[in-house]
Amino acid sequence: MRTARKTLSLLTGLALGASCAGSALADGQLDKVMKDRGLTEKDVLAAAKTYTPTGGRDEYIVFSSGGQSGQIIVYGIPSMRILKYVAVFTPEPWQGYGFDDESKAVLDQGKVRGKDILYGDTHHPAISETDGEYDGQFLFINDKANPRVAVIDLHDFETKQIVVNPVYKSQHGGAFVTPNTEYVITAAQYAAPFENGFVPLEEFNDKYRGGVTYWKFNREKGRIEPENSFTVEAPPYSQDLSDAGKGPSDGWSFTNSFCSERYVGGIERGRPPFEAGCSAKDTDFLHVINWRKAEELFKAGKTVKINGGNVLPLDVAAKEGVLFLIPEVKSPHGVDVSPDGKYMIVSGKLDTHATVYSFEKIQAAIKAGKFEGKDPYGVPIINFQDSIHKQVELGLGPLHTQYDSKECIVYTSLYVDSMVAKWNYCEGKVLDKISIHYNIGHLMAMEGDSRSPDGKYLVSLNKLAIDRFNPVGPLHPQNHQLIDISGDKMELLYDMPLPLGEPHYAVAIKADKLKPEVRYKSGWNSREDKVSEFKTRAGREKTERNCDASGNCTTEVWGTVIRSHITPEIIEAQVGDTVKIHLTNLERAEDEVHGFAMYGQNVQLSIEPGKTSSTTFVADQEGVFPYYCTEFCSALHLEMQGYLLVQPKGYQAKAGGMQEGVAYTQADYDKQVKTNVDTQAVIDQVVAYITSHNYQDFPTVVGLVEDATDQLGFAKGAKEKAEAAAAKQDWQNAMLWANQWWQYQVKTADLGLRAKTFLEQNGAKKIK
Amino acid sequence: MRTARKTLSLLTGLALGASCAGSALADGQLDKVMKDRGLTEKDVLAAAKTYTPTGGRDEYIVFSSGGQSGQIIVYGIPSMRILKYVAVFTPEPWQGYGFDDESKAVLDQGKVRGKDILYGDTHHPAISETDGEYDGQFLFINDKANPRVAVIDLHDFETKQIVVNPVYKSQHGGAFVTPNTEYVITAAQYAAPFENGFVPLEEFNDKYRGGVTYWKFNREKGRIEPENSFTVEAPPYSQDLSDAGKGPSDGWSFTNSFCSERYVGGIERGRPPFEAGCSAKDTDFLHVINWRKAEELFKAGKTVKINGGNVLPLDVAAKEGVLFLIPEVKSPHGVDVSPDGKYMIVSGKLDTHATVYSFEKIQAAIKAGKFEGKDPYGVPIINFQDSIHKQVELGLGPLHTQYDSKECIVYTSLYVDSMVAKWNYCEGKVLDKISIHYNIGHLMAMEGDSRSPDGKYLVSLNKLAIDRFNPVGPLHPQNHQLIDISGDKMELLYDMPLPLGEPHYAVAIKADKLKPEVRYKSGWNSREDKVSEFKTRAGREKTERNCDASGNCTTEVWGTVIRSHITPEIIEAQVGDTVKIHLTNLERAEDEVHGFAMYGQNVQLSIEPGKTSSTTFVADQEGVFPYYCTEFCSALHLEMQGYLLVQPKGYQAKAGGMQEGVAYTQADYDKQVKTNVDTQAVIDQVVAYITSHNYQDFPTVVGLVEDATDQLGFAKGAKEKAEAAAAKQDWQNAMLWANQWWQYQVKTADLGLRAKTFLEQNGAKKIK
Repeated sequence: MRTARKTLSLLTGLALGASCAGSALADGQLDKVMKDRGLTEKDVLAAAKTYTPTGGRDEYIVFSSGGQSGQIIVYGIPSMRILKYVAVFTPEPWQGYGFDDESKAVLDQGKVRGKDILYGDTHHPAISETDGEYDGQFLFINDKANPRVAVIDLHDFETKQIVVNPVYKSQHGGAFVTPNTEYVITAAQYAAPFENGFVPLEEFNDKYRGGVTYWKFNREKGRIEPENSFTVEAPPYSQDLSDAGKGPSDGWSFTNSFCSERYVGGIERGRPPFEAGCSAKDTDFLHVINWRKAEELFKAGKTVKINGGNVLPLDVAAKEGVLFLIPEVKSPHGVDVSPDGKYMIVSGKLDTHATVYSFEKIQAAIKAGKFEGKDPYGVPIINFQDSIHKQVELGLGPLHTQYDSKECIVYTSLYVDSMVAKWNYCEGKVLDKISIHYNIGHLMAMEGDSRSPDGKYLVSLNKLAIDRFNPVGPLHPQNHQLIDISGDKMELLYDMPLPLGEPHYAVAIKADKLKPEVRYKSGWNSREDKVSEFKTRAGREKTERNCDASGNCTTEVWGTVIRSHITPEIIEAQVGDTVKIHLTNLERAEDEVHGFAMYGQNVQLSIEPGKTSSTTFVADQEGVFPYYCTEFCSALHLEMQGYLLVQPKGYQAKAGGMQEGVAYTQADYDKQVKTNVDTQAVIDQVVAYITSHNYQDFPTVVGLVEDATDQLGFAKGAKEKAEAAAAKQDWQNAMLWANQWWQYQVKTADLGLRAKTFLEQNGAKKIK
Repeated sequence: MRTARKTLSLLTGLALGASCAGSALADGQLDKVMKDRGLTEKDVLAAAKTYTPTGGRDEYIVFSSGGQSGQIIVYGIPSMRILKYVAVFTPEPWQGYGFDDESKAVLDQGKVRGKDILYGDTHHPAISETDGEYDGQFLFINDKANPRVAVIDLHDFETKQIVVNPVYKSQHGGAFVTPNTEYVITAAQYAAPFENGFVPLEEFNDKYRGGVTYWKFNREKGRIEPENSFTVEAPPYSQDLSDAGKGPSDGWSFTNSFCSERYVGGIERGRPPFEAGCSAKDTDFLHVINWRKAEELFKAGKTVKINGGNVLPLDVAAKEGVLFLIPEVKSPHGVDVSPDGKYMIVSGKLDTHATVYSFEKIQAAIKAGKFEGKDPYGVPIINFQDSIHKQVELGLGPLHTQYDSKECIVYTSLYVDSMVAKWNYCEGKVLDKISIHYNIGHLMAMEGDSRSPDGKYLVSLNKLAIDRFNPVGPLHPQNHQLIDISGDKMELLYDMPLPLGEPHYAVAIKADKLKPEVRYKSGWNSREDKVSEFKTRAGREKTERNCDASGNCTTEVWGTVIRSHITPEIIEAQVGDTVKIHLTNLERAEDEVHGFAMYGQNVQLSIEPGKTSSTTFVADQEGVFPYYCTEFCSALHLEMQGYLLVQPKGYQAKAGGMQEGVAYTQADYDKQVKTNVDTQAVIDQVVAYITSHNYQDFPTVVGLVEDATDQLGFAKGAKEKAEAAAAKQDWQNAMLWANQWWQYQVKTADLGLRAKTFLEQNGAKKIK
């Protein structure tokens, strides 16, 4: 409060001084806002560091897991505005995900043992890497509950593939990529038999297993290749997070674990609970894996097939120098390889220390064959002291570490202390601590998992929000806190509530590395990334009804959508028909998405410019089923409608056409034409403004002008139809087409005005 | 840019001046941030007006429709941070919505003609009102695609009920409430037969119908009563939005319409499209309905039953003075009653004018029986000129109007112009315009639909974002722009991307009117708002397996969840069993939610403090199915796990108990006890700090202390078990229970540290 008052009086003083006059900040406006809203100077600085004015861009884009929402959350730094939820494991109708046939095929890949799984528990996203640097091409995310991995293509932010782990029954650790995205790494969590049958818990030690899976990624195809992927079988310790080596440690990966006690609870039968037995020992095991060696063994045929997957047996992994163990402080979460690939930092939530392992020392021990023994499964154990560089006391509940751009500087989350510690891992010295709110899980620095972290900002992913935000019922948002790490002291900048899902980990990439498209090539199946077999061109729309020999009939529609009508506007089917509707969005304009919803059939498509989407359902009840566009696309959006008529079997239409609700005359036509001529004058003025300015320097405006030109072309077509009808004195059609001509003019004017406003607000210059 | 430079030099100058030293703002820090980020003075002011520091509260809470996402979006003003997505029509696993048995029952209410509909197209939310003021108790939202209404209880932000309109086939207009929430009003959109069978479009004028439905709301029960609700049948014009009268117009409601041409398209067969024929006339019809009269007629038995719903026939409505029509400018969107109930403002997207109707004049015409004629269905038409107060030219595409706190001041969105117009509806004068980005649909003022709007802020709900944000693929976020309306000129403050869904309308309520709970009463079925029949107390957990006469067996679990274990930890079933699991969250602490996910069974529950949630599935495959807590609840969250074992039919466990992974000795026990004694010392220090400060003045801390006390109680229980085992020299159990004792200590310390930090950061005072 003292600081705030100081600023206030200072600013008030300034406002009175001659040298300070005329400024919006100094004339007391900021002063007044600060006073009214109880802001301190520090708050105003934080506001200025995060506020992003209209049309501004964020410097970093974050991909955050959505936890049990099964989605990915995309937000910007420093504005902390959420830009998109990308549907991954859970159907989401706004995106048509799990509603159109194309995306249903992706979700179907994720069935577990034949069952639909309509959610996922996403934990750790990873961006594809080239030479250890985020390349912004693909994103990978795991499902813990059902051991799956999804591939998201960042050229359109859509989920393209889901693969199911053939042998795990849970999979918390993942996804992590090798430095050139050769593999996506995931690890089992709760030990279970690799085979799918029942095995009693009494045989836990002998028959339950963990493992680490290396999913082969084909970058050209943008897909994981399960047949070229393999799993390294591991003891029934609960494997947790991994990281891939890089530089000197490339070819190796590191996975930590908990419950290496192999304890099985049963509190209901008097046994102490899992939480007691799984945290009883002082140490668990860091798993050190030579994945390049494992790959060689896989290629040499040393793996076995289990449930169709390739598994490198534990005894082979132990014997062939693929798998090693090192003690690590108990219940760790996260093993993080340094940018130079020389060190791995691990900390345990139930120990106050972080441990800095040295890859060089580990390799020396392995080469010397110097082990302190073997675990019960014959896996060599490297001595803790032989493998560490430093051990540093950080505080209560250290959990996850991220690297700064500055040499030797790291940040570690402290779960129990609700703090972030900044420390020097070369010298083993704590430099700064900051309180967060509350109970931080992971933290994330900008490009923090890459070979060259950017520093600048840190995000604290807090597991509890409690009182941080306006209350919204018993289920609270989480809280991502943005921290400025550019200076010596960490500074808290912003609290962002997460409105849906429980994020676990996130990755941030420099925004300019992402180059997403704004439209698809015409007639595109976006889930298969190829021209759709159902692509339909303007004027080629058709509806066909065909029956097979057993009398099963299909009504199939190849249609289009464009401002502001769906072709066809009437679909006729007979009861019992399978109805297939394929719609191609003919728009080229950015953001001109059309939706397609139909009454009572659970149909909702999102058809972005260029996309072809399909829906299939059985019309099992007679009736009238309105459909319409669900994206507010234009002034006539509400009128972008149609009817599916499900007729009785064998229905024949009676003679006599449509009843007209209103009959139009020549006077109506003439009046409409006059309106159109007047409207054209307005359009001509707008065009004159645009073309007299340097609009070609503004890509957004160039896009608008192209679109406006298209719409004017459509207007011309409608005008011709109107005039043809008028020539035949068919005033009904003359008037209606004249109105349609005007509707295209309105769309043209809409675009022109948007373009004109943009030019005015962005300092366009008059030319000539 | 000129302004920015001016500030910079000004601030730089200040920093050098003696009177300006020592301030974080003036010592050049703000200057530098502005320069680095290219911010103008206006930007910094906007930042200060919206930035909300950690722990701060928003002044208003917004409930926004989520469009075809089928959800409600909750955000704060002025921070524009999204606080929650509330699942309404679409299953959402983070909330367990559509996954637990209790919420599945709510979604099941929303089946349409027997079919599951797993999305909704939400458009217009309404907050319950008392005397025309938002009371913050309930929220209502429509589904356009499938004619449904949902009821959300704002005491816990959960969806409680979905009702399906018995006669409509689409329903865009809704929800709107009468001044004491007697009724929730919805209107049909695309005309269709009221009966469910097929009727050819050739009979459109005769057999297709629109209507306005009045859903009776029972506030005591918090539920709509379909049996006490009724529909006023209307001509097959596309009815659109409504508003209820208030004050002098209470008892009446107003609904506008488009396509009163009754045009039916068919572009695929050469007919001009719907968009041409539905916008051909200059005017559509404002529907004026005496709902109090309709209610009387319903109670007097004048309605007929169609599909089980109560319908007041069109001829009765026309004859009995229930329904009147007035011309309105074409293709309107929104009819908005003034706070004093005397005026209704309507504007049409294809006309440049807004019309201010006078309720007094309308009533005078009705009383005088002065009509200009009847429509083809016999409904009296009131003359336009006889009913209006003013008609005002605003710009291109006027769409929706909101009222200010200042008398006679309103704001109207201009879709084609991409602007907001501020004008005086008493005098019919435009006062100000501001450009938005781009193509505004609805706009919303604070408590703008109530009897006493608050002014202050306006939100522009824009339908296109185009270039406003970092690109995220072909499907763009929408853009809600916050506008400061406290001064004479409107000022743009903030652009908020909407990351999921396509919001149409929103309502904002003063935050302090909302009093949501942070926990449920113990063992609560939140969807039925009563104690669950499956409520389970600590220590009363049980699993039962029962088979019926036909050999169908059910394994049923009454379990509990609490930091950090699920009871039971092992569930045994036999293949083919129906498995029912009921879990009660024993926590009382704010935000201590536990989740419950199980491998391969599509099971994901969100169990907030006090809640009882259930899941039912068929264990149709033998095997081992891990389950675990999906909310990161505590340091031992990962260890909050268990196994469902699906055994072969008739399986009998072999003799011999669990293999222990590790055997513990007296030394292990003694070491753990020493740790516990040391930990207790830390706890005592924290307790001393808290109790020596005025912690009881901080409700958040009081909550934490209560929770910590509970955890210490649990620690005591585990300690007793450990000591009892030690007395028997059972070192295995002694050690494990001693560790469990420590786990409870860790939870206690976690809470204590959080409380201590809170006190330190919130200026707690030392007492005595």
